[in-house]
Amino acid sequence: MRGSDAFQQDAQHHLAAGDVPAYMQTLGQSARAAASALRRADTQVKNQALAAMAQQLDAARRDILQANAEDMQRGRENGLDSALLDRLALNDQRIDAMIEGLRQVAALPDPVGEIDGMSYRPSGIQVGKMRVPLGVIGIIYESRPNVTIEAASLCLKSGNACVLRGGSEASASNAALSRCLQAGLADAGLPAGSVQVVATTDRAAVGEMISMPAYIDVIIPRGGKSLIERISREAKVPVIKHLDGVCHVYIDTTADPAKALAIAVNAKTHRYGTCNTMETLLVDAPIADILLPELARAYAEHEVELRGCERTLALLLQAVPATEDDWHAEYLAPILAIKIVDGMEEAIEHIERFGSHHTDAIVTQDYSLARRFMAEVDSSSVIVNASTRFADGFEYGLGAEIGISTDKLHARGPVGLEGLTTQKYIVFGDGQVRQ
Amino acid sequence: MRGSDAFQQDAQHHLAAGDVPAYMQTLGQSARAAASALRRADTQVKNQALAAMAQQLDAARRDILQANAEDMQRGRENGLDSALLDRLALNDQRIDAMIEGLRQVAALPDPVGEIDGMSYRPSGIQVGKMRVPLGVIGIIYESRPNVTIEAASLCLKSGNACVLRGGSEASASNAALSRCLQAGLADAGLPAGSVQVVATTDRAAVGEMISMPAYIDVIIPRGGKSLIERISREAKVPVIKHLDGVCHVYIDTTADPAKALAIAVNAKTHRYGTCNTMETLLVDAPIADILLPELARAYAEHEVELRGCERTLALLLQAVPATEDDWHAEYLAPILAIKIVDGMEEAIEHIERFGSHHTDAIVTQDYSLARRFMAEVDSSSVIVNASTRFADGFEYGLGAEIGISTDKLHARGPVGLEGLTTQKYIVFGDGQVRQ
Repeated sequence: MRGSDAFQQDAQHHLAAGDVPAYMQTLGQSARAAASALRRADTQVKNQALAAMAQQLDAARRDILQANAEDMQRGRENGLDSALLDRLALNDQRIDAMIEGLRQVAALPDPVGEIDGMSYRPSGIQVGKMRVPLGVIGIIYESRPNVTIEAASLCLKSGNACVLRGGSEASASNAALSRCLQAGLADAGLPAGSVQVVATTDRAAVGEMISMPAYIDVIIPRGGKSLIERISREAKVPVIKHLDGVCHVYIDTTADPAKALAIAVNAKTHRYGTCNTMETLLVDAPIADILLPELARAYAEHEVELRGCERTLALLLQAVPATEDDWHAEYLAPILAIKIVDGMEEAIEHIERFGSHHTDAIVTQDYSLARRFMAEVDSSSVIVNASTRFADGFEYGLGAEIGISTDKLHARGPVGLEGLTTQKYIVFGDGQVRQ
Repeated sequence: MRGSDAFQQDAQHHLAAGDVPAYMQTLGQSARAAASALRRADTQVKNQALAAMAQQLDAARRDILQANAEDMQRGRENGLDSALLDRLALNDQRIDAMIEGLRQVAALPDPVGEIDGMSYRPSGIQVGKMRVPLGVIGIIYESRPNVTIEAASLCLKSGNACVLRGGSEASASNAALSRCLQAGLADAGLPAGSVQVVATTDRAAVGEMISMPAYIDVIIPRGGKSLIERISREAKVPVIKHLDGVCHVYIDTTADPAKALAIAVNAKTHRYGTCNTMETLLVDAPIADILLPELARAYAEHEVELRGCERTLALLLQAVPATEDDWHAEYLAPILAIKIVDGMEEAIEHIERFGSHHTDAIVTQDYSLARRFMAEVDSSSVIVNASTRFADGFEYGLGAEIGISTDKLHARGPVGLEGLTTQKYIVFGDGQVRQ
């Protein structure tokens, strides 16, 4: 098998010649070879690489900030808006956070090698499942350079090689971070192909990356819905998708009013731009005339615009009429759609028809309703009596999160280290043959 | 929501008008609606439907055999070969086997609703995962009509609606079986859309089926490699693939010779046409000159053709030279490729380079080698000291098998009821909000 250095030299050669397809193929081959080494790497070796990467980041602060200043300068010249510039910007505090992130991932339990459900079969063989890395993971993301460190650390810890394609606006920052990652890998004796940051801003690189099933086992796009939809449509490699979060809270008549108020306010106003933010509130009719005016006062304090169904409008003068589009909307903004329904059945029907199967909650004191809501709502997170904002890898105890999957196959909901692995069957026998 | 009968009427209407796209869309809508009902169905109701289906099959033997006779007649007229005609043929014994299959699936534990890893988080919420159906499963298969019953029963038991597209040569048989399935669903009060057999032999139906992500959550093709590759290439819906099985047995020098002999003979000769049959034997050099001649005698009794590397040829006069193609070959026939290697390292490299990541085995008495082989071989089944032929849903104790997945994501290896489900996160709180 070819050595990692030979691949890196070839890659540089193709890059210099402007041959993007050959460059990406070489990264893919290098990653595939590195994946074999990573699959066998001890937890200790992987943790050593993560610790060395953290040290390298600390030592290279000046380089990183200088590279980031270049990106920021170019960004301002290209007229990036202030939100984008803020996401792009690095400072000592953000570098501290990356270093802390690397150390946290090193401290997480290693999912690789975990054996599940080993049992004897009548034939005398023992069968179980062993957790193993997926192989090579491709990650395509946008402006935030810290994703480079996050993605690299999670892939490495779960025993996967990765190919990282960040936004072109962050290219200098990502190149500086890549040098730290490479030095960390070398320190632990792991191949350079274990983590590769794509070093061209040519958009053809993405097209190649999503068309190499021989070298890349799964693509995880991180970014806006349009990026993810485009990649999913064109990819020849499986994609772990994170599409929209049209999340609901349904408040049942038996709900504890204080809890209902707290949950409905938190689910909407804790952060507006996140996928687990509530976008539509469903209220059971008998409790609506007491609860809604109080809720409206709380939302008014947060300057949340309310868009209601007809029955809601009759109760809340400050609400504007909701249209069909509002029931589908992922506002990611201080706007809330409100609908009064007649019972949980209607609430579930609404969620099924208009929701995105991301995260949906019920507030109720009724045991049977809670039990039924849990079983019947087909969403990646179903919550009883808590805010939808809890649908998050850290809150769920995964220790880290590479994204939230809205797919049904493989990983569903917040994806941590385990979502970057798969299980193979293992069999122990002592000479058994099939009769 | 529209009733199941309305969908069935619409479907008949589109079918009569020859509008295949509209027909398939209607089946899809009907399946999606049925999936909501099935998700909520108790185990008892699903088992009742399975039992009623078994009764219906028993009562409809005459109809089924008559329909099958039509298919056989047409098959003979169309010049189907005898192997295909054999797969197509039904008789009382085969109907008995279908009835028994339905009863076995009814007796399996219901995977739906199983809750895993529930634990308290520092915030006070309790988080865990609940096993739930995938939704709607599309199955595309070839001539054997019993797949209709197998697929329907596994999808139903796992709470999924299904759309079944069998081979056109079995259309009359499948229609007769479909009537029994429908009667069974009606008996248990489940919607007709729960199990739908596509009633047109127009090939456009397959194209539609694999392009309806709104209505079908996953496609499982069962058949030859070319069918599966074509469907995977064209599908807009996730596909659980079962591609080739280029399986290896590696015999280490420390192997118990009697066990090695038994395993190597069984793995090749127990059945030639199955995906878990050994296609290449790898033998550690120091044991080759003792073991190979003995093995060759055993294979000669089974009339297995041997194709060897140069070192093998020097030991076995009856062997013919193997070419590069032989190392890649899935013979599905009494042919075996043999290679002498220098140690496990080389064996694993060979498996990685030429294998299909399906099932690979080692025969060894060395503890450390067994442990390393287990960890390092990246196949859906990795076996120590037993025949590759054990890689099978029944032998593994899954109770049933809808296929063997060669994918890494979602299900890997034999797929039983659990592979037809997914897990969602569930959260129980008591008013918690995110700080």
